[in-house]
Amino acid sequence: MGKYVFGVDVGGTTVKLGLFDAEGNLLDKWEIPTRTENQGEKILPDIAESIQAKMKEKKLEKEMVAGVGLGAPGPIDAAGTVYGAVNLGWGTFSISDTLSGLVGMTVKAGNDANVAALGEMWKGGGRGCRNMVAVTLGTGVGGGIIVNGGILTGACGAGGEIGHIHVEDNETEACNCGNAGCLEEYASATGVVRLAKRMLTATEEPSMLRERPLEKLSAKAVFDAVKAGDALAVKIAGQFGEYLGKGLGVIAGVVNPEMFVIGGGVSKAGEILFDYIRPPFDRTVFKGCKDVKFALATLGNDAGIYGAAKLVLE
Amino acid sequence: MGKYVFGVDVGGTTVKLGLFDAEGNLLDKWEIPTRTENQGEKILPDIAESIQAKMKEKKLEKEMVAGVGLGAPGPIDAAGTVYGAVNLGWGTFSISDTLSGLVGMTVKAGNDANVAALGEMWKGGGRGCRNMVAVTLGTGVGGGIIVNGGILTGACGAGGEIGHIHVEDNETEACNCGNAGCLEEYASATGVVRLAKRMLTATEEPSMLRERPLEKLSAKAVFDAVKAGDALAVKIAGQFGEYLGKGLGVIAGVVNPEMFVIGGGVSKAGEILFDYIRPPFDRTVFKGCKDVKFALATLGNDAGIYGAAKLVLE
Repeated sequence: MGKYVFGVDVGGTTVKLGLFDAEGNLLDKWEIPTRTENQGEKILPDIAESIQAKMKEKKLEKEMVAGVGLGAPGPIDAAGTVYGAVNLGWGTFSISDTLSGLVGMTVKAGNDANVAALGEMWKGGGRGCRNMVAVTLGTGVGGGIIVNGGILTGACGAGGEIGHIHVEDNETEACNCGNAGCLEEYASATGVVRLAKRMLTATEEPSMLRERPLEKLSAKAVFDAVKAGDALAVKIAGQFGEYLGKGLGVIAGVVNPEMFVIGGGVSKAGEILFDYIRPPFDRTVFKGCKDVKFALATLGNDAGIYGAAKLVLE
Repeated sequence: MGKYVFGVDVGGTTVKLGLFDAEGNLLDKWEIPTRTENQGEKILPDIAESIQAKMKEKKLEKEMVAGVGLGAPGPIDAAGTVYGAVNLGWGTFSISDTLSGLVGMTVKAGNDANVAALGEMWKGGGRGCRNMVAVTLGTGVGGGIIVNGGILTGACGAGGEIGHIHVEDNETEACNCGNAGCLEEYASATGVVRLAKRMLTATEEPSMLRERPLEKLSAKAVFDAVKAGDALAVKIAGQFGEYLGKGLGVIAGVVNPEMFVIGGGVSKAGEILFDYIRPPFDRTVFKGCKDVKFALATLGNDAGIYGAAKLVLE
């Protein structure tokens, strides 16, 4: 097996690329634009060209490289076939076969959230775990489940889509997915803002969150207020924690992980999140699954390229 | 690899044993009592003796046998270590090593519900699937999750304990596990009876279920009444279906199976169950995971010995 490996993380506006050695040391990191026009037909050729240029620059021959791993936003099965990626313009085709044909090396591909979870297990907050659930609290809520050291892909690449588990029967506002009452509606950055707006509208209780207009509220502002001891913000964090803690309790009962690794923008609030997630988790989780550690993700936006590289080295 | 394999299913009162060929044909099936006295110290020696007697009877040499698979009620990790099995008197020890030492052959072990799920995938209702969730609606609610053809064991052998996912915040009655609001409290045979008693007590609506004393109610009586068109029984089945359908929707979002295979005593009601489970499932499941088939388990009490045999052949 080659001594080097490329990890690629395809996003809607930029493609991140990394060159790693087989021990997982990141040797070089760069970005190229994602050209989504014409059903994203240029994306894989652009990636191939960029990898070949890097190999020339670093004087790497193909036999020195174990392969290319790639994560992309969409359902991707274990064989590397993507079943439509709206943000990239892609339909259904084999990423592995197409990119492998272009670079002449082994290519493995997976869903970006799943691949990022693998990265966090390998070199991030979940280091040393073989059974782990990564939870990304960003604009939405994403997830990736690692079972026995590998990604739980599922029947059609939708394994770990934990943002859309149903947690509230009484929700009237629709989620982006079309359902109502999904975890994402309360535990994402926009979800925290939703909870805050509702709480601020429903009561007249004083709060430092009232010092700015409602439309300028952010998850960060809410958790900053929590840290400052604002009682209303604490109640909002409590609601967030109830939804997320109980949701993670269910997930723990299903897949029995050693650890939850929490990342994404909301996780920048830090370990204070666990003060709100852990009590409802502990109260509702099956006792046989309760010895779960909670940790913060550590790789940030690099989790995707780390995990993509690991896909090849598995 | 040998041409034969033994499958063993250890229950609280009897141990079921099966002799299979490598294609999974059940050649012989028998039972021995489970001797739980003295921390169940006789259980594995009794099994070893029974297997050796069967080998003598069938003139099988060790090299003709691929090994022995075993399922038992308790958390058992992928290496075959059991972490306490209350019903058997067992503490923590390696089933694989102990039984292997007694029979001089390879031994694999797993949790009984997980092993039964593997059996249903191999030769039962889930035949042909590689990603499947088995749900056993018996006295309790058990489960087993198959990912890529293998058991999802989890960090400490508690993977697939879906009976204890939290589904109801307003429950006051405790589940056997010590929590309150577990799926098992509504979707097991005793859970259906609980829902029925509450419904019968809360209303005065006429129902054929009132023809017998409350303490003689059974899940079978409820579903028989549903089939007879009893309006109150239909409401009870609706509540059962709401809890179970939404619970399975969450599980589908987490592990993205191709199929749910429903077994256990309650499943004897037949496919009519799906009429109550499927609508709440469809309403709440993440759309990317909604193409899931529902099927009835077909192996009954033999699922355990089939799955145990498959453990060895994996």
